[in-house]
Amino acid sequence: MSLIYLLDLCAVAVCAITATLEARRRELDLFGVVVVAVIAGIGGGTVRDLLLGRLPVYWVNDPIYVVVGMVAAMAAFFLSRRMAPPKNFFLIPDAVGLALFTVIGTSVALSLQVHWFIAALMGVITGVFGGVIRDILCNEIPLIFRTDIYATASLVGALLLITLDRIGISHEAAILLAMISTVAIRLAAIRWHIHLPRLRPHTD
Amino acid sequence: MSLIYLLDLCAVAVCAITATLEARRRELDLFGVVVVAVIAGIGGGTVRDLLLGRLPVYWVNDPIYVVVGMVAAMAAFFLSRRMAPPKNFFLIPDAVGLALFTVIGTSVALSLQVHWFIAALMGVITGVFGGVIRDILCNEIPLIFRTDIYATASLVGALLLITLDRIGISHEAAILLAMISTVAIRLAAIRWHIHLPRLRPHTD
Amino acid sequence: MSLIYLLDLCAVAVCAITATLEARRRELDLFGVVVVAVIAGIGGGTVRDLLLGRLPVYWVNDPIYVVVGMVAAMAAFFLSRRMAPPKNFFLIPDAVGLALFTVIGTSVALSLQVHWFIAALMGVITGVFGGVIRDILCNEIPLIFRTDIYATASLVGALLLITLDRIGISHEAAILLAMISTVAIRLAAIRWHIHLPRLRPHTD
Repeated sequence: MSLIYLLDLCAVAVCAITATLEARRRELDLFGVVVVAVIAGIGGGTVRDLLLGRLPVYWVNDPIYVVVGMVAAMAAFFLSRRMAPPKNFFLIPDAVGLALFTVIGTSVALSLQVHWFIAALMGVITGVFGGVIRDILCNEIPLIFRTDIYATASLVGALLLITLDRIGISHEAAILLAMISTVAIRLAAIRWHIHLPRLRPHTD
Repeated sequence: MSLIYLLDLCAVAVCAITATLEARRRELDLFGVVVVAVIAGIGGGTVRDLLLGRLPVYWVNDPIYVVVGMVAAMAAFFLSRRMAPPKNFFLIPDAVGLALFTVIGTSVALSLQVHWFIAALMGVITGVFGGVIRDILCNEIPLIFRTDIYATASLVGALLLITLDRIGISHEAAILLAMISTVAIRLAAIRWHIHLPRLRPHTD
Repeated sequence: MSLIYLLDLCAVAVCAITATLEARRRELDLFGVVVVAVIAGIGGGTVRDLLLGRLPVYWVNDPIYVVVGMVAAMAAFFLSRRMAPPKNFFLIPDAVGLALFTVIGTSVALSLQVHWFIAALMGVITGVFGGVIRDILCNEIPLIFRTDIYATASLVGALLLITLDRIGISHEAAILLAMISTVAIRLAAIRWHIHLPRLRPHTD
């Protein structure tokens, strides 16, 4: 689990950094940015733990997650005052982070013997809910409800992980394949502008 | 409990459908609509379970709730692209759903031996918080804070159920009477435009 | 603990009253105002209890907190229709409430033997999250992300309490000193317009 743990911390940092850059467009002070960024990083796993009853939530017993999120947010805060990051710089780290949160969330739920459908849901919740809370705090309709195939990529990865686990493939290989599929779908959706169907707003 | 269970699933479906129709006015894709709709359907009971410490929350061990919400939302999503539903079509199902969620939430809390006041609160939370979270996700001030006697109808039903239970009337009869009173108050408020007092905004 | 308990109830009432006055500017009916006010009063401690797994949350077993919040909100609701409160009337009670919630939250977490860093976080969460949820319900970016040194004052108080506790000073004295420092920093920030650094929004 030690590589996964390290990658998990990296995913928290990436989430915190992208949230900080998001928050650039808002009139937030340093404190506000750091809080929003940390919540973006650990919010998904926190909601998962609350729903599953794994309490206290995971970062209470391992504060390093919060520290990593804070340091990443502060670094991004001060750096972003000096220079704008190259456009699209974070698309790939962000997709990897999504994939990682998804497989971790799914694995945690599977280890609690819940129904496979709930395990997949928990994977998606871990993957996307940090961003949902970030957007709510910033007073926006959550991005994932309006854009691309973000959560769908997470769902496919979670379902693939569960399927491969059932087949009896090694857990490490299953995790790797699930992550690759999530990253591939996410990047393909961005590259070729693939969308889910949208409601055409009526005028009423 | 089998009739209650069936009605509970129907209430989740009704909540999900009305949330889907609400979301029509927003630029949500299919995924966003389904998530908002499912959360509207199961959010109230989820918040209740979290506050009471009944974990994991109820739908983790009974995924059918989530499935019903998803199927109802998807059906409403695709149907609503073809035709608008008749105006006010869902007012009565919605009122019945509110009543049902209220009595279920109150009953669950009572079975945990909490104070009657808390049990009534949990009934109201179960009844209305799905809608509150739906509106927050859609970036609106929750409807129930601005309109009619929605939550008040739920509160009256919860208090009536608790009172009738104390008197010693059969639980089934108490539930039925409580539901009728909630539905009646809700529909009467809509019919005759009854409002609670409102703050007149000062200009400052 | 009896003085702390009384002060805690007062802090809930102050929070509920300031939330009611906030809500004046919105088109909320009586029910909406009371709900927002009660959540503002008890929301911080509720989030703390959820994250720490102290369930059911504290007010389920002690409904007086909810009652105090409701009564304070209703009194403020009807009074505020007759007269506007003097400007800045609540700044000092509000700062005292922040300090009190902070030391209570920190003490609760310390009693559960969590890491000191988490205990400080829980103090801040208890102090400020009621206001965060209030602002989200009112569809605003949470005030504490945009203004003054509100949460920073809470953080300093929490860290001071933890430090003094380690040194071995009596818990009562530690609580008093921590509260004084939080109130002093908060009022000084208001008086001399002290700010944390802010992100200069780029134009992109």
